[in-house]
Amino acid sequence: MYTLWIANKNYSSWSLRPWILLRALDIPFNERLSYFEDGKSSREKFQAFSPTGLVPCLIDGEITVWDSLAIIEYIAEEHIQVWPSDKIARAWARSAAAEMHSGFTTLRQLCTMNCSIRNELNEITPELQCDIERIDALWTEGLTQFGGEWLAGDKFTAVDAFYAPIAFRAQTYGLKLSAISQKWVNHMLKHPAMMEWAESALKEPKIAH
Amino acid sequence: MYTLWIANKNYSSWSLRPWILLRALDIPFNERLSYFEDGKSSREKFQAFSPTGLVPCLIDGEITVWDSLAIIEYIAEEHIQVWPSDKIARAWARSAAAEMHSGFTTLRQLCTMNCSIRNELNEITPELQCDIERIDALWTEGLTQFGGEWLAGDKFTAVDAFYAPIAFRAQTYGLKLSAISQKWVNHMLKHPAMMEWAESALKEPKIAH
Repeated sequence: MYTLWIANKNYSSWSLRPWILLRALDIPFNERLSYFEDGKSSREKFQAFSPTGLVPCLIDGEITVWDSLAIIEYIAEEHIQVWPSDKIARAWARSAAAEMHSGFTTLRQLCTMNCSIRNELNEITPELQCDIERIDALWTEGLTQFGGEWLAGDKFTAVDAFYAPIAFRAQTYGLKLSAISQKWVNHMLKHPAMMEWAESALKEPKIAH
Repeated sequence: MYTLWIANKNYSSWSLRPWILLRALDIPFNERLSYFEDGKSSREKFQAFSPTGLVPCLIDGEITVWDSLAIIEYIAEEHIQVWPSDKIARAWARSAAAEMHSGFTTLRQLCTMNCSIRNELNEITPELQCDIERIDALWTEGLTQFGGEWLAGDKFTAVDAFYAPIAFRAQTYGLKLSAISQKWVNHMLKHPAMMEWAESALKEPKIAH
């Protein structure tokens, strides 16, 4: 069985991606949670199981997969339902997930994931607005083009998992989205796996800021 | 046939990744090159063919794939040689490529790709040193563990393509690497596809800095 190393559910947006995918698709795995330490020491602590000292990290027997997108492609080799079955939807979903993986740095920095608070933004910088608008346009495209309740059709796939942390951020910071995008956020936040994650996040010890 | 949109060969490290993969694996494609404009206007210009206004972007009939890693996974569906055939090597290669895709931001910012100059660094900041050391450790691991002349074995695969821009950077900035990593850099720079790219890069009009 897979072992998935993650960090604090309240803060670790990267951990959420493979976790929510495995849970939503009912793929069994052992969860191992290691809390962040202050400053740089988390990286040293995490090096006990992850070669980069970052989470998430998947262990499957003798194989270690140490990046969220690589983990998802690794799981996809065994589980065909990870990506949409339609070729066009799959190409779209992979592009959208990879865009998240390397992009949206302003949103990630200014609106860090924190499931347990509600925090109005004092200012929306032009760069942040640009990230929000791009995400909104992307979601709208997927929801319209593939016509399902999930981003790339009628089934939860890896692209939903990749944007799951943005659903929490939209809730935490009250991000203004179009009606169709907000509907996806609401749908996502009510998914049993998202509710399970959020419930655990609330119970964790919090880091002082 | 695939159409691959790229920008200036001298500067566009993201474009190099799928280009070098297709060329090295002898997969036919049409190259479309659009030069960067000053400031933000490249993004507007590139939106004519790429939904994000970024390069590279692959067009395959009615399908558009707009991210370098998504392009590589898209091509891998049709061309099994894109990733190593061995499962362990493939998981390693995917992790290493995805780590590049979301990481090494200091190296990418301080040592931008510029094939046509040689530029000694005035200072190696601790963050830059950290990126260089991680890349060196990663390459050493792949070259040692899989025992080939390429990063994940005896064949050129997508992980070599993903680190190809670092080979150019190592040459441009004289990055100090271990002997085994330097050997891979030298091997990469002598690959006919890399030489073809560099030759075209030299002939392009240059952007004043």
